[in-house]
Amino acid sequence: MHVLIICAHPEPSSFNAALRNTAAETLKKQGHDVKISDLYAMKFDPVFKKEDFRSRTNTRVFNPYPEALHACETKSFAPDILSEMEKVRWADILIFQFPVWFSSWPAVMKGWIDRVFQAGFAFTFTQMYGGGLLKGKKAILIVTTGAPEVVYSKGGPAGDIHMLLQPISHATCEAAGLEVLPPFIVFNAAAQTEEQGKAEIERLKKRLTSL
Amino acid sequence: MHVLIICAHPEPSSFNAALRNTAAETLKKQGHDVKISDLYAMKFDPVFKKEDFRSRTNTRVFNPYPEALHACETKSFAPDILSEMEKVRWADILIFQFPVWFSSWPAVMKGWIDRVFQAGFAFTFTQMYGGGLLKGKKAILIVTTGAPEVVYSKGGPAGDIHMLLQPISHATCEAAGLEVLPPFIVFNAAAQTEEQGKAEIERLKKRLTSL
Repeated sequence: MHVLIICAHPEPSSFNAALRNTAAETLKKQGHDVKISDLYAMKFDPVFKKEDFRSRTNTRVFNPYPEALHACETKSFAPDILSEMEKVRWADILIFQFPVWFSSWPAVMKGWIDRVFQAGFAFTFTQMYGGGLLKGKKAILIVTTGAPEVVYSKGGPAGDIHMLLQPISHATCEAAGLEVLPPFIVFNAAAQTEEQGKAEIERLKKRLTSL
Repeated sequence: MHVLIICAHPEPSSFNAALRNTAAETLKKQGHDVKISDLYAMKFDPVFKKEDFRSRTNTRVFNPYPEALHACETKSFAPDILSEMEKVRWADILIFQFPVWFSSWPAVMKGWIDRVFQAGFAFTFTQMYGGGLLKGKKAILIVTTGAPEVVYSKGGPAGDIHMLLQPISHATCEAAGLEVLPPFIVFNAAAQTEEQGKAEIERLKKRLTSL
């Protein structure tokens, strides 16, 4: 299968990077083709903006939805958007690998979604969820949290992590038609021992081997 | 009171901008002091990154949490972060005004949070929620959605908008100690008639007059 790993961590030697590398190596060993969009390394611009639409239908007032539909038809998005769209088209599985910041993905990854999952490419107002335009592809979240599991439990201070990830897993990925597999979550990542970290890496290998 | 409006929409003549202007004018008429951080106009950089930490405790490996605590002590964040922190300190109320994109805030506003709500400024691992460092201040979300209310209802395709906003209202704002007032939501904003838009503007004026 074709796997696109979209990842975002500011430190190339971080535990998140180790998870990303483990995922890539494990999948390659299984015979899958892997591409990586390392958003920090690419210095990906996360700001959805007018300038991304190089052939506007209305140059006076910028209205994102109709401009996105038009840019899909005319392939007139900014080059970095077109390039990421090409990778998404190629992929059978999208892996989003990130540290959970404020119970969500880092801004640079939210911006990858804002700019790449355009109307007309990932969804339209009448083609979402069951009819989402990326139907047939799958998604997995591979994430770390700074806080321990109890903080992200039902009844914990933050609340159930699976509920907090709904805007991502359900209202972004499933909205675009992606089948979302169970997330791989490493809690308390900052405070884990080297041994615990190694055990999590092994757990990830096992998970991805039986993909 | 001191009100800081943080807003993000790429079109200065958008309905979102009208909501922002209405909020500012209404609050000023009530005698409040208003500051605005218009993230698109400011070209705010939303990417949380090493370079924001100008006096690192560990220059070899970048570990965000301890570096943030150190940068708070030494006031050594990048100037744009320090400037936004100053506005937050000044404010009694933070208003987040944005279009809901993928059931969340635009990347540029998520990045404002990632970079401004630093550990040591908005929270620490032992000072969150009831002990959040911005305790005593309030927050309001003033948002628009592209989809109609039924999409964002309990049992609707996206699910209850109040649940989807939990990572923002609860796990970001309340985590930082902010008291979160009920959100002001305009559904189906893109498809509303001019008359409906005017009615929503009046509804916002009324809401903010009785703040």
